[in-house]
Amino acid sequence: MRKSRLDTLSRKEALSRLLAAITFHPRKETVPVTDARGRVTAEPVIARMSMPPYPAAAMDGIALRTKVTWGASPLRPVRLREGRDFTYINTGDPLPENADSVVRIEKVNILEGGGVELTEPALPWKHVRQPGEDVAAGEVVLPAGHRIRPVDQGALLAAGVERLTVVCPPRVGILPTGSELVPPGHPLKPGQLREFNSTVLAGFLEECGAVPDCQEVVPDRKEALRAAFLSAADRCDIVVVNAGSSAGSKDFTPRVLAEVGKVLLHGVAARPGRPVVLAIIGETPVVGLPGYPVSAYLAFDWFVRPLIRHWYRSGAEVVPPLLARLGREVRGGLGTEDFIRMRVAHVDGQYTAFPLARGGGITMSMVRADAWLRLPPDTARVNAGEQMELEWVRTPTEVEHTLVLTGCDDPLLDRIGALIGRISPGWSLFREYTGHEVGFELLRKGGCHAVAIHGDRWEGGFSGIIRIRVAEREMGWITSATAPEPVSGVADLIRLGLRLINRPPGSATRKRLTQLLNEQKAGRLPSGWERTEGSHWKAAASLAGGTADVTVGPRSVAKAFNLVWRPAWREPLDLVLPRSVAESDAGRALIGTLRCRDFREMAAQLGGYDHSRAGEIIDPPVTKNSKGGRWEL
Amino acid sequence: MRKSRLDTLSRKEALSRLLAAITFHPRKETVPVTDARGRVTAEPVIARMSMPPYPAAAMDGIALRTKVTWGASPLRPVRLREGRDFTYINTGDPLPENADSVVRIEKVNILEGGGVELTEPALPWKHVRQPGEDVAAGEVVLPAGHRIRPVDQGALLAAGVERLTVVCPPRVGILPTGSELVPPGHPLKPGQLREFNSTVLAGFLEECGAVPDCQEVVPDRKEALRAAFLSAADRCDIVVVNAGSSAGSKDFTPRVLAEVGKVLLHGVAARPGRPVVLAIIGETPVVGLPGYPVSAYLAFDWFVRPLIRHWYRSGAEVVPPLLARLGREVRGGLGTEDFIRMRVAHVDGQYTAFPLARGGGITMSMVRADAWLRLPPDTARVNAGEQMELEWVRTPTEVEHTLVLTGCDDPLLDRIGALIGRISPGWSLFREYTGHEVGFELLRKGGCHAVAIHGDRWEGGFSGIIRIRVAEREMGWITSATAPEPVSGVADLIRLGLRLINRPPGSATRKRLTQLLNEQKAGRLPSGWERTEGSHWKAAASLAGGTADVTVGPRSVAKAFNLVWRPAWREPLDLVLPRSVAESDAGRALIGTLRCRDFREMAAQLGGYDHSRAGEIIDPPVTKNSKGGRWEL
Repeated sequence: MRKSRLDTLSRKEALSRLLAAITFHPRKETVPVTDARGRVTAEPVIARMSMPPYPAAAMDGIALRTKVTWGASPLRPVRLREGRDFTYINTGDPLPENADSVVRIEKVNILEGGGVELTEPALPWKHVRQPGEDVAAGEVVLPAGHRIRPVDQGALLAAGVERLTVVCPPRVGILPTGSELVPPGHPLKPGQLREFNSTVLAGFLEECGAVPDCQEVVPDRKEALRAAFLSAADRCDIVVVNAGSSAGSKDFTPRVLAEVGKVLLHGVAARPGRPVVLAIIGETPVVGLPGYPVSAYLAFDWFVRPLIRHWYRSGAEVVPPLLARLGREVRGGLGTEDFIRMRVAHVDGQYTAFPLARGGGITMSMVRADAWLRLPPDTARVNAGEQMELEWVRTPTEVEHTLVLTGCDDPLLDRIGALIGRISPGWSLFREYTGHEVGFELLRKGGCHAVAIHGDRWEGGFSGIIRIRVAEREMGWITSATAPEPVSGVADLIRLGLRLINRPPGSATRKRLTQLLNEQKAGRLPSGWERTEGSHWKAAASLAGGTADVTVGPRSVAKAFNLVWRPAWREPLDLVLPRSVAESDAGRALIGTLRCRDFREMAAQLGGYDHSRAGEIIDPPVTKNSKGGRWEL
Repeated sequence: MRKSRLDTLSRKEALSRLLAAITFHPRKETVPVTDARGRVTAEPVIARMSMPPYPAAAMDGIALRTKVTWGASPLRPVRLREGRDFTYINTGDPLPENADSVVRIEKVNILEGGGVELTEPALPWKHVRQPGEDVAAGEVVLPAGHRIRPVDQGALLAAGVERLTVVCPPRVGILPTGSELVPPGHPLKPGQLREFNSTVLAGFLEECGAVPDCQEVVPDRKEALRAAFLSAADRCDIVVVNAGSSAGSKDFTPRVLAEVGKVLLHGVAARPGRPVVLAIIGETPVVGLPGYPVSAYLAFDWFVRPLIRHWYRSGAEVVPPLLARLGREVRGGLGTEDFIRMRVAHVDGQYTAFPLARGGGITMSMVRADAWLRLPPDTARVNAGEQMELEWVRTPTEVEHTLVLTGCDDPLLDRIGALIGRISPGWSLFREYTGHEVGFELLRKGGCHAVAIHGDRWEGGFSGIIRIRVAEREMGWITSATAPEPVSGVADLIRLGLRLINRPPGSATRKRLTQLLNEQKAGRLPSGWERTEGSHWKAAASLAGGTADVTVGPRSVAKAFNLVWRPAWREPLDLVLPRSVAESDAGRALIGTLRCRDFREMAAQLGGYDHSRAGEIIDPPVTKNSKGGRWEL
């Protein structure tokens, strides 16, 4: 076991150090224009011929010498004979010898017997495309360093260019390291992990015009690493190692790199992605990425993308920021830059951004992220409500067609997200467990479109809202295989001394549990009272994984994980939304989904739901005096 | 010859009519996640396993039961023995049986002899990733209709998903029609045209997730068209015909479509792209695009892209508009929507947009376009200076790294554009011939970065400007092979009765020609006096094409076209730019290019330039009293 201090250079300094240490000599090749989409020009491309190559008709009509039309007027039309005075001509046809104008067919009176009549004189060179009108031989069609789009291919072919010289893409080696990693397609044994970063990094590389060269997993042995590094550095223009760049006992990457090459730095003052290693083997730059997926993706953005731009000599991409107010306070670390994945709600034309899970290992946070928030090293915290500049991850369209649902948790709510885009093309759902209290606060501030609630009574304090039924759900006690017997109430819980996963503070279910404990005069809290999970699924996953014994949740969750479930109560699961939202595209997409047949089928498949009133408007939306009723919590 | 009236439905109505007439039945297929980048999910994808699958260390450190650390403090550290009390653990490793916490290695004092010491108690489940922390089995990872990105592939593999069901891309037939068309790679005979729209359309299709099925060119014969349409409609999900959709004598497309299927409409109220044909053969939608490239690209955007989105059931992409003021008045047609390609200057943080060439045949206008301006049917004209919403074509980054150069024309100025990106990565040049008067007006308004001038005297009316030498150029009389003898002055021009291509009104060279004619007391203007070309290259291309006999221009142009050239005068070619621009990134990129060796080599290669002072600052910038001097025009 070794403790290591990481370097604390800024990203910018670290990148300068890397770029200063290398000199690329990009290869060039000549390719047909028809295969050149996405390639980058190695030199300026000059037009070989003029387009059009000859004077050509710009309209369908007749070609003639203007002289023959002089004096034409509505009172004294000029009659012309085909062959002698004019020729019919189609758009793009070469102008006949001696003709100097084209008259549009719409202006021509065609006479019986073949001749035509004109009622106004033609103008010289009217409706004639001059040679080179589009592009003239010798003109620069594309500069060097230009990434070729379909429209560029068209202009090149028009200009007589059939082949052109492009920069060869850099070959980038991807070396996954770690004895516990197993590539996709092979079964996992206990303790092994799926190696998926190579797939992600290869996709990134293809998107930015590099050729990924994916290697087999290298085990955590110095000799194996050494051989793999040397071979990749020899064969590739850039090498990406993933991972082994942090400070664990098996993190050999920096040490081996120092042996076979030169380590430029180990660690930057930015999180996640901090424990990156930058090195050179021979003339080949090597970027050692952290193993956590999100950290690896960020460090890839910071160092590998700029290397590829450097190869192509192209400038950095700057996109307009997303201006959003923060829906929640965000904290960073002093002295280090923080990159925080954010979810963005678009309600009533206002963007509101919320931080997502911050762990480097949360791959789903990258799937769900709408934007990055970058906190500079001197910012320890930003308050809720502040306006910030974010960097887009999804597109504005996607964000503006995302329905944001907060409040309580239920797997059936996930299924809305699975279906909404099928019912309303382009729409998707973001669901965040916040509990109903925070949910209502967000609803008030425009931070979400709707709040999920369960039970019958709730304190909205709103006017102009409606309430829509999702389903009635069956709630109960979920126990793992580690529990000696199933649980059917709080008494069992205490008696058996089981490890609970509780609902978060403020949640209605937690309050109900408290009430039940008081009624039982339990005297002490069950073990694990303070251990909470926002999502019923995650709680069930912990039970299935053996780190807890019991939780309270919907029958559907227990069914999915094959856990034991005993009924406790039934309760409605509803959505509350402002009338204005219900009448907007977002609301229509949501209600349409609840009412479709597929949704009912999904509810039936999950189990534990009565979906007979799904999508119904519940009137009145607020039941103030239902204390003691069946639904009360 | 047939005259036809085109329909005048709006684009929106036309698209509704098309979509109402078809029902797609997209095929599905199952593919490995590793091959799924860019594919669209056919159904929601559910996590198969939890990630992590077991409780795992979130940090490098030691795993232990918290109980053994109770009571630890700096004054009373707790000593632990490896094996009995704790195990060393690396990030991602499974937590050992019985352990319920991880202490970061940085907080551990490692003792001689193998034990460790802690100075504070460990917290339960601290630095432990619970099973399913990232994704829990049963959770929805991706909704249906989602286009898969690399980060999605990572999350899918993490969630134990190895294969998934995706929508098969639609097969889109591309039928080029026209007997005069020759595909790339085959030599062109006189009167033939290069068929390049298929290449462009295939690129568009691949970019939007369709499989192009490019057919051979179909000649303009009804039977051939009929057979090609039927076969393509049978084999493909969508058919794109290009062209033959307008009203020329060989435009059979609508007629043949009506015979083999049903024509839904012919023509929309939008330009260019107006003469589009929408039809159905069997169940297959057919879009007949106009032949002019830009018209074809637009009609593709209007009808083919929405068909592909419809296939995938995905929503329309809406991107934030570009807000720019118009640098010049723009006119549209009443009753028709107009799409105008625009060039955008970004000077001092302000976007100013200028219309580019409007012909549907100008492929270079699509290469040069930064944005589209859409004028609705009720707008006949928008004045210069008005703020408008434009649609981006290039990215904001590209536009903001484009140096805009106006003023006089010279091929050497093109070469700055060919080189600037090589000297300053990311930068490109937009050059527009405006003449120096309009150029200075633009410079004053922030519509360009610099103005090219020739000759020695000019009226800037500026302060705080600098003048930079490009080269000294040789100007003279350029004659085509159609001229009976070379021209050496205006006297020859009149005497031989040659057809001139003049410089545009307001240009210094035109003024000089006027002056020479007056001195000669010519009495009449040469033939073609009113025929002008903004660019010397285009004028030379017309000479080479035989539609004119003589023009005045730089030696380099005559050399490139192998035309006869006789010297007339020499003059400096300079750039004028505000000092603030010269000191900005844009100015540095420009001056750096003029001073580099490659630029001098290019000037030497073009011929007719003295490049010895290229990039030098000319002092004083304004020479007021040089009348009668060698350089005066």
